[in-house]
Amino acid sequence: MKVNGRQTRTIWLGSDGWSVEIIDQALLPHRVVIEKLTSMAAAGHAIKSMQVRGAPLIGATAGYGMCLAMREDPSDAGLARAIAFLNEQRPTAVNLRWALEVMRATLAPLPPSQRVAAAYAQAARICDDDVETCRMLGVHGREVIRAIAARKKPGEVVNILTHCNAGFLACVDWGTATSPIYHAYDAGIKIHVWVDETRPRNQGASLTAFELGGHGVPHTIIVDNAGGHYMQAGKVDVCIVGTDRVTANGDVANKIGTYLKALAAHDNGVPFYVALPHSTIDWTLDDGFKIPIEERSADEVLKMPGRLPDGSVVTVDIAAPGSPAANPAFDVTPARLVTGFITERGVAPATADGLRGLYPEAVRG
Amino acid sequence: MKVNGRQTRTIWLGSDGWSVEIIDQALLPHRVVIEKLTSMAAAGHAIKSMQVRGAPLIGATAGYGMCLAMREDPSDAGLARAIAFLNEQRPTAVNLRWALEVMRATLAPLPPSQRVAAAYAQAARICDDDVETCRMLGVHGREVIRAIAARKKPGEVVNILTHCNAGFLACVDWGTATSPIYHAYDAGIKIHVWVDETRPRNQGASLTAFELGGHGVPHTIIVDNAGGHYMQAGKVDVCIVGTDRVTANGDVANKIGTYLKALAAHDNGVPFYVALPHSTIDWTLDDGFKIPIEERSADEVLKMPGRLPDGSVVTVDIAAPGSPAANPAFDVTPARLVTGFITERGVAPATADGLRGLYPEAVRG
Repeated sequence: MKVNGRQTRTIWLGSDGWSVEIIDQALLPHRVVIEKLTSMAAAGHAIKSMQVRGAPLIGATAGYGMCLAMREDPSDAGLARAIAFLNEQRPTAVNLRWALEVMRATLAPLPPSQRVAAAYAQAARICDDDVETCRMLGVHGREVIRAIAARKKPGEVVNILTHCNAGFLACVDWGTATSPIYHAYDAGIKIHVWVDETRPRNQGASLTAFELGGHGVPHTIIVDNAGGHYMQAGKVDVCIVGTDRVTANGDVANKIGTYLKALAAHDNGVPFYVALPHSTIDWTLDDGFKIPIEERSADEVLKMPGRLPDGSVVTVDIAAPGSPAANPAFDVTPARLVTGFITERGVAPATADGLRGLYPEAVRG
Repeated sequence: MKVNGRQTRTIWLGSDGWSVEIIDQALLPHRVVIEKLTSMAAAGHAIKSMQVRGAPLIGATAGYGMCLAMREDPSDAGLARAIAFLNEQRPTAVNLRWALEVMRATLAPLPPSQRVAAAYAQAARICDDDVETCRMLGVHGREVIRAIAARKKPGEVVNILTHCNAGFLACVDWGTATSPIYHAYDAGIKIHVWVDETRPRNQGASLTAFELGGHGVPHTIIVDNAGGHYMQAGKVDVCIVGTDRVTANGDVANKIGTYLKALAAHDNGVPFYVALPHSTIDWTLDDGFKIPIEERSADEVLKMPGRLPDGSVVTVDIAAPGSPAANPAFDVTPARLVTGFITERGVAPATADGLRGLYPEAVRG
């Protein structure tokens, strides 16, 4: 998508043809800095320090990290060392392990002299496959938005509410929840996006607003408390969110607060869609409430980063001194509150049958 | 309630018997500073600058502001000037006008020489009446909490969720939503309070957490997104919130986000109570959705005050540069989602009949 007027992905090869460039997302939205990665160590640091974040982008960075590693040492020992090193940068990131396994399967059978070129080709495929998945998801999701636009008066804006950042910044391009939005916008459908700020980490106000603004999509930041009011007032036509995991029965684990928006959508007859690639479906679980909910640091609730007037970025304490905080990262939205899933294969109802209809080849748990 | 170990109200007479002391709430929770008001101008400034906030406390401060004004000029002209001056400090504060009308009715018939003493007596009555209303509300609300405790296993904690600050800091003592909490705690009932941080102004994380902590009530700050998850997990036994206006049919206007918590409570079978004094009931409206919703400054969403490590208080920009924000201050929770009203006269269902049963003398619109 566009950043500062230039079409860009979140990761790409430098003009030298071998170095790897990323947007340093740890500095967003306060500063836009392009970081050049020229070593395996730098790629590992980018993953660990969350200069790159989002499951697909972490996988893509691991792929290119393997390219840089093969330039340094393409031997069998170097291959094993690189996989072990990159794998430990984010211990719970499923996509990181998946991408490293793809790279290993490609590189291990080859003689060391062929590994560098093969690594770059495979890393590019990981990126292109992710872009294509997100693009197709957006093509199907655009038609959901187009159908809503068709039921409105000519020229009336379609108001879309989203929560957290399931955007291109978490992927290589397009994003998941944002892909239907970008496709609708690029197709000339009049839209406006309500961006939940998404406490505690503010991914909506900082990342989603940043990327929608960069691409030119009209949007307004609101606090997480406000969405229900706008739905009551008829100012939300559809909700589209991403997800961290969908169980085989259609329950949705996503950023904390998603459940509250789904309740409000249901109470006001607003359609509530979840956008996801197939890799997010957990066929081994048939009850979202069996998903363990990560408890994160209380500091994310009690402290807040921001810009001072001089442009410097500081972190301030925002709560009553001495008061404790709790910080569950996700909640589970039951399938009964979800209108449908938007996937790269099309749109389906949020039911076991709906998911199986899209993915008949999937192995169930 | 207790602040730094000392029993205190939010406004009281100084040891000299005539000056007026307040907690400077504009500095909370970062610093606790007692401010001494010795002139009508200082009382007006305290109201305007939000050193005092909350309808009952604004009224009480106006009462004492009239005392200080009568010390300066007890003539008829001085009386008229003081009322006009204080009235314009917060143009939309209903309680401010009400308190000034009470003071005028008391003082105007008296000769100037008797006005100072009469003003102090009347201002004290305004305060004491508010304390008694909040106290009785808490006595009735305590029994709601006691009944929930009786249904739990012996020794099990009653988990209470509250939103925003309907606490003693907004009143003279006890508060509204917090009064049942303080009364239950003081009665030895084991409780724990989930404090919604309450974006955008963070009254929960800054004020409610501050006052509960000061009185020793166990509590935990959570982001506004988290309450639904805790209700799904069975970790909320009852919600108690305040209100800015209740219509005659039982609809509740309160801080933005209240509706989302009421939806989650309803979806999980958690009782949802609204605590209010009679003065909050608007008998002239029978539909909460007729209440105009105040739109406040976008800066409340886009900026955040907090403490730096050196203790200084700064305001930082937290969102993507250039993105706009919208900021509706209140939402309306329909009566169907409210279990009951806790008032100074007892507890009633959230219906027109429930309210009329408690206040048969009220003049309806």
